[in-house]
Amino acid sequence: MASGSQVEELQARIRQLENELRLAQSKEQQHDTHRTKIDKMSAEVVDSNPYSRLMALKRMGIVNDYEKIRTFTVAVVGVGGIGSVTAEMLTRCGIGKLLLFDYDKVEMANMNRLFFQPHQAGLTKVEAAERTLRNINPDVHFEVHNYNITTIDNFQHFMDRISKGGLKEGHPVDLVLSCVDNFEARMAINTVSAYVERWQFLHEYKSCNLHTVCGSIFLAWIKKESSCSNSWQCAPPLVVAANIDEKTLKREGVCAASLPTTMGVVAGLLVQNVLKYLLNFGTVSFYLGYNALQDFFPSMTMKPNPQCDDKYCKIQQSEFKLKEAAKPKQEAAVVEEEEEIVHEDNDWGIELVSEVSAEELKAASGPVPDLPEGITVAYTIPITEPTAGATVEESEQSLDELMAQMRNM
Amino acid sequence: MASGSQVEELQARIRQLENELRLAQSKEQQHDTHRTKIDKMSAEVVDSNPYSRLMALKRMGIVNDYEKIRTFTVAVVGVGGIGSVTAEMLTRCGIGKLLLFDYDKVEMANMNRLFFQPHQAGLTKVEAAERTLRNINPDVHFEVHNYNITTIDNFQHFMDRISKGGLKEGHPVDLVLSCVDNFEARMAINTVSAYVERWQFLHEYKSCNLHTVCGSIFLAWIKKESSCSNSWQCAPPLVVAANIDEKTLKREGVCAASLPTTMGVVAGLLVQNVLKYLLNFGTVSFYLGYNALQDFFPSMTMKPNPQCDDKYCKIQQSEFKLKEAAKPKQEAAVVEEEEEIVHEDNDWGIELVSEVSAEELKAASGPVPDLPEGITVAYTIPITEPTAGATVEESEQSLDELMAQMRNM
Repeated sequence: MASGSQVEELQARIRQLENELRLAQSKEQQHDTHRTKIDKMSAEVVDSNPYSRLMALKRMGIVNDYEKIRTFTVAVVGVGGIGSVTAEMLTRCGIGKLLLFDYDKVEMANMNRLFFQPHQAGLTKVEAAERTLRNINPDVHFEVHNYNITTIDNFQHFMDRISKGGLKEGHPVDLVLSCVDNFEARMAINTVSAYVERWQFLHEYKSCNLHTVCGSIFLAWIKKESSCSNSWQCAPPLVVAANIDEKTLKREGVCAASLPTTMGVVAGLLVQNVLKYLLNFGTVSFYLGYNALQDFFPSMTMKPNPQCDDKYCKIQQSEFKLKEAAKPKQEAAVVEEEEEIVHEDNDWGIELVSEVSAEELKAASGPVPDLPEGITVAYTIPITEPTAGATVEESEQSLDELMAQMRNM
Repeated sequence: MASGSQVEELQARIRQLENELRLAQSKEQQHDTHRTKIDKMSAEVVDSNPYSRLMALKRMGIVNDYEKIRTFTVAVVGVGGIGSVTAEMLTRCGIGKLLLFDYDKVEMANMNRLFFQPHQAGLTKVEAAERTLRNINPDVHFEVHNYNITTIDNFQHFMDRISKGGLKEGHPVDLVLSCVDNFEARMAINTVSAYVERWQFLHEYKSCNLHTVCGSIFLAWIKKESSCSNSWQCAPPLVVAANIDEKTLKREGVCAASLPTTMGVVAGLLVQNVLKYLLNFGTVSFYLGYNALQDFFPSMTMKPNPQCDDKYCKIQQSEFKLKEAAKPKQEAAVVEEEEEIVHEDNDWGIELVSEVSAEELKAASGPVPDLPEGITVAYTIPITEPTAGATVEESEQSLDELMAQMRNM
């Protein structure tokens, strides 16, 4: 038989444990406290309104219909140094739906860039990102996929979600942002663009962390409407590994350098242009570079390659030509005049239209760091030789191989 | 008397509570899990090394001595949309010591920008920031101050910490980053620069959220060595409210708009230049603008005003002249040649040396949004009239008033 005092002791212990548990749970809850959902974006200027400073863009006369952002779906492929910040910015802006694709896990080695935190090490990047982003803005619809998009099965599923995973199930997403760090994934995204109709295509251009270190990253985006579907393939890389394989570079750890600054700037420029494009304000940049060493920001427009060996690209090009022909003459003429061809008739038939003046290029040509053998930096010195064309040419073989690989999938 | 089964029930309840408590505490701990401190930055390429991708900058030949970052102290004044991201980037880069100054609380209305999360609403910004940053990188030394630097007592303390709060107590900080959103605070920071010797001065230039909305933000930084101590006062603002007080604009809520993109880009450009300056790589921009609507990035250098009415500024200027005179002749001559004076002899005697070509300006002049009455945007159209000079002139009176106010403190 137990004594009354023993029972009292046990009951006191229970009360103590219950208190401790309540405290621990409230602390845990504090971290998980995400605000309640908001049905309709309000422009009310109060501290409790998470949308007040975004809706103020309307009052300022910058954006006509900010609420429209809730109708769009954006896919972010690659949730690394650029993709994670890109996803966070879109989430905070109140995008309708976000699809995230990645197959990596968070590592302590990722802590040199924004977004992921040490306590998330070991989690998959999409899982960790979804949890953080959902807490930040529960109004956004999230769909995350933890797989490598370049394997056969995954690529099929990836293509399916891009073409049907919009806010209205069955409808395509509005934009795909390529924030990946390797050629294979970039080519997979490019291939998808050829299959899916009626959606816009957008790219963040960064072929490897190498670019960050060399201080330059390219942001490129191509509206299918105004260009070919293979524009990704045709876009000239900023840093070119000649005679060495990208994988070799990475394996040796040479490519592992990156900075939160460069990544943040590129993500910011990417999402800024996404917002301008979706919400129809300002001027959208189709190709924008950032050379961190010199604070130099070259921009370009691209024209499709009439000799492209991709049939979908050619179909796209002829459709575009027909559309252009149907437009009033004067408008087309103006566009023509604005563009100054820097160099045509390179081996790829790509016309690069530079928006950078000779003076600007001269001003930007400062000291260039010593780089490992076989690596050169593009766009730091004035174009006298067709440098950009040459860089594309150098990587031609591996691109062809990759495209062939994609088609065989 | 109690029955044995009652005791067993109570004991079972205790075991259950103990388990739940353990689980809740481990979850709580998970959030607080910050990695252990690291004595010496390692370049080892392993997933567990948070510095591997930063130290890789050495292997790439970009930075000679990355570890040196641990010897620097940076003060971030204003922990809002730009200051918080700036502090996070510096923390992730492994800066030696960070001083944070702010007196605001986190609000849900701040969720449109990066860094703060909904569960932090209600906390002071410096408290919330310190907790997050310490978790991200416990190797950084933090010192935070929750006060308004423009009141008399606080200004004295602020000045004291700037001049003595370095990594080695008693030594000044290496850089001050102005990430504030009002003239008073900016002028307070400027005043400090006149009192403190032998430290470098750095500014993020953003006088009001208005700039963000108008799509343009200026980043300005001035090495005291090469310029006057009042450079902040002399720097031309990008957006000018003519005949209306900044406070009026804010009070009406007109100024409340901001985007995570613009803030992220400006913070990235700011910290990138901090890194280039502290670690001695690339070319440092002294004045860099970002016009988000047009993806236009004007840059400038500034020369001191020989007619400046601040005596400290004049002392600085004569010291600089003596230093320059002591340098070998050839070096000084080269500097002279590089600079092209756009317009001199304005009312302020400031020489603005444009690094933007006429072509670039032309290319950047696109559609400008309709802005509320009294607000104009600078640097979107080619400079034919001395626009920048005029904008400085327009705000002359209020600046004078503010400076007088500061001196009376």
